[in-house]
Amino acid sequence: MQPFELTASEASALIAKRELSCEELARSTLDHIARTEPDVRAFTYVDADQVVRNARELDKTPPKSPLHGLTFGVKDMIETADMPTTYNSPIYFGHQAGKDAACVGTVRARGALILGKTDTVEFATGGRRAATRNPYNFAHTPGGSSSGSGAAVSAKMVQLAFGTQTGGSHIRPAAFNGIYGIKPTHGVVSREGAKNYSHTLDTIGWYGRSVADLQLVAREFRLYGIDDAPVTPLKGLKVGLCRGPNWHLTEASGRAALMTAAARLADQGAEIVDLDLPPDFDHITHAQEVVMRGEGRAAFLPDYLANHTLLHQDFRDLVENAKGYTAEDMVQAYDLAASCRRQFDGLFGGTLDVVLTPPCIGQAPIGYYDTGNPAFNSMWTLLHVPCVAIPVGLGDMGLPVGIQVIGPRFSDARLLSIAAACAPAIHAPAKLAPVDAAMAEAVAA
Amino acid sequence: MQPFELTASEASALIAKRELSCEELARSTLDHIARTEPDVRAFTYVDADQVVRNARELDKTPPKSPLHGLTFGVKDMIETADMPTTYNSPIYFGHQAGKDAACVGTVRARGALILGKTDTVEFATGGRRAATRNPYNFAHTPGGSSSGSGAAVSAKMVQLAFGTQTGGSHIRPAAFNGIYGIKPTHGVVSREGAKNYSHTLDTIGWYGRSVADLQLVAREFRLYGIDDAPVTPLKGLKVGLCRGPNWHLTEASGRAALMTAAARLADQGAEIVDLDLPPDFDHITHAQEVVMRGEGRAAFLPDYLANHTLLHQDFRDLVENAKGYTAEDMVQAYDLAASCRRQFDGLFGGTLDVVLTPPCIGQAPIGYYDTGNPAFNSMWTLLHVPCVAIPVGLGDMGLPVGIQVIGPRFSDARLLSIAAACAPAIHAPAKLAPVDAAMAEAVAA
Repeated sequence: MQPFELTASEASALIAKRELSCEELARSTLDHIARTEPDVRAFTYVDADQVVRNARELDKTPPKSPLHGLTFGVKDMIETADMPTTYNSPIYFGHQAGKDAACVGTVRARGALILGKTDTVEFATGGRRAATRNPYNFAHTPGGSSSGSGAAVSAKMVQLAFGTQTGGSHIRPAAFNGIYGIKPTHGVVSREGAKNYSHTLDTIGWYGRSVADLQLVAREFRLYGIDDAPVTPLKGLKVGLCRGPNWHLTEASGRAALMTAAARLADQGAEIVDLDLPPDFDHITHAQEVVMRGEGRAAFLPDYLANHTLLHQDFRDLVENAKGYTAEDMVQAYDLAASCRRQFDGLFGGTLDVVLTPPCIGQAPIGYYDTGNPAFNSMWTLLHVPCVAIPVGLGDMGLPVGIQVIGPRFSDARLLSIAAACAPAIHAPAKLAPVDAAMAEAVAA
Repeated sequence: MQPFELTASEASALIAKRELSCEELARSTLDHIARTEPDVRAFTYVDADQVVRNARELDKTPPKSPLHGLTFGVKDMIETADMPTTYNSPIYFGHQAGKDAACVGTVRARGALILGKTDTVEFATGGRRAATRNPYNFAHTPGGSSSGSGAAVSAKMVQLAFGTQTGGSHIRPAAFNGIYGIKPTHGVVSREGAKNYSHTLDTIGWYGRSVADLQLVAREFRLYGIDDAPVTPLKGLKVGLCRGPNWHLTEASGRAALMTAAARLADQGAEIVDLDLPPDFDHITHAQEVVMRGEGRAAFLPDYLANHTLLHQDFRDLVENAKGYTAEDMVQAYDLAASCRRQFDGLFGGTLDVVLTPPCIGQAPIGYYDTGNPAFNSMWTLLHVPCVAIPVGLGDMGLPVGIQVIGPRFSDARLLSIAAACAPAIHAPAKLAPVDAAMAEAVAA
């Protein structure tokens, strides 16, 4: 096994024991990137000399934290002091930020090695797509908008990577690329220095190749309760199987992933119960769109005024309020969201430990323009709840399918501990058997 | 009258008619700043040559908007592409941002002339104070944290200026400096590029020397309904006189301002009714503190890790959660805020047009360390509602006192139109008579 193949947790242990140097890990990773990047196209910027220099500096000091020397990709929506940040917008080609975004500054202060910037959909939402391809099949999208970060972690070009989610930009690429990802509770990680789209929705997340990898990073962000989250046993775990208001959009592979995960958890002693969301949740996907577009109208106004011809029509439509949402629509959407947040948290009063639900409708679409449907993400983003993506296996096209687990607001630490218990039971890198309706009923019974 | 003495609206009309050049206005303003700045200390950065060069460029083109050539101060919490941004933190001395903050980029695209950066309390909240002095009495604070912006507009060193409000940083300095200010509905103006403290609270606002000046800027930010807000007659205007849960903290001059304003509005035919807020509002000031400190804990983590010794103890306390607020406290605070937002909006269903309430407890304190009590601001910031500060007159120390008017979320355009109607009735630059309890009762009866 070469160093680049190590998960973050594995490499961290070796670096702590001085059995692996930061430079060895960096060079192994850079060599792998050189071989892989022409096919995967995950990065917009990698300066190999800079990476090696920084790795050598890290080798001069004792490990600053368990992140010391670990390789990070940074979505090109997120500013870095020593690399350009373009948001995949022609307005910002060559743009150099004056300081690191908060998330980058935090892990860098703890010794992380920033490998490079990863490709994104323009401003993380529309317009130009990333050039990135799905490592499982280069003809398919890796999902978006955190396209490069998802593919880079999947292809072992980095161990960890930052993404962002406003609709479904973080959890969906995790599923499409067969990796682990967390979108934490809104606001517990500062999103300063990521290009703004919607202040109510924009959330920084990260990817890894195990739940332990996600926990490594979560500890450095000091998420509430992260240092004393108990190990969660699967036996007796109360799992709410949530098809949700958009279940009719799922594909067979997506349904198979959810039902297989539920069956595997039930095999290990978890109690699977059907979870029907209250009626208000039927309107929450629309409310997310109203909030996103309303706040996006303000966010892109300066680009619209100063660089009109370079701004993609998708964003001109936003600023011009092409959908005609009113101030009253905004207030209704905010108030519905607040009500649903309370209702969702209220589900967790003893009868439920975690929600199990699809992270996307199925396997990654073919091509690079359609980055997938956010129908299984946008409502959770608006609800501000933590979501963890876990791979389940492969669909009929040989592309990854997965699930996500969700907890109430601020339960990130416990959710990660539940995910750590669930993942070994759920995840097997093999094609799933189709799940027919009868089996689905049996599982849910 | 010299050009620097013109309000924004007056100068805009002259520039549109080519009766005043941008360069004339700039030079007159720079001369005035040179005379005034040693006493007021409003600015952290002014490059006179740069300002004149930019003004000449503006004179080469037809007016881009009614903001063309108008002079703007920018609180040094807000990034500018061509000037340093320090947040009054030694960590960021000499810091150069890579692009303009969204608010600066918007007005610059519309022809505004950025005069310079104005002093602020460290990171707009604690630690180091601004060097700025109150133009009405140099021994007194101009308030904070938008200290320099408030004083600069008051001292006619700029016509307009941006501030920010997380607790009471924008409306309170407006009152202390005898100027007009708006804190718009949270989120209707992008706060990208202002240093983050609390994403739920941080709000960009602006100052001017008339309500018309505030409206000039509001139009360029395309606030909902701003282009067709009708003129509001005072006769029959239903004004809710709101002492609020912190009334016991007011000083005599603050009470006199509120009661005088109410009496003057009543004289013009407005209907003044006592407004008691529902019981939940008794807890909203505390909820604001919980949200601010909880979100601030995440915001200052990277500075804490990377620049620990340069970070003021106030911010170390935040990151270390010195007050011990829990995740449960955060959820309760968020949910209380959401409930109060709905309850407050519900007050405006036909029986009420606008809320009249103090912007601060009284006149500006003596000295520069105590920048004033935010007790009459922080709850409104958490409620996300638009607030407009209007000066009333002078207190017993000869320092300004004022009021603020408040409307439901997203009613910024109508609130400005109400403020435009109220201001000429309310504002007279003379010492107020003391208001005793009997008069207060009479006004409210």
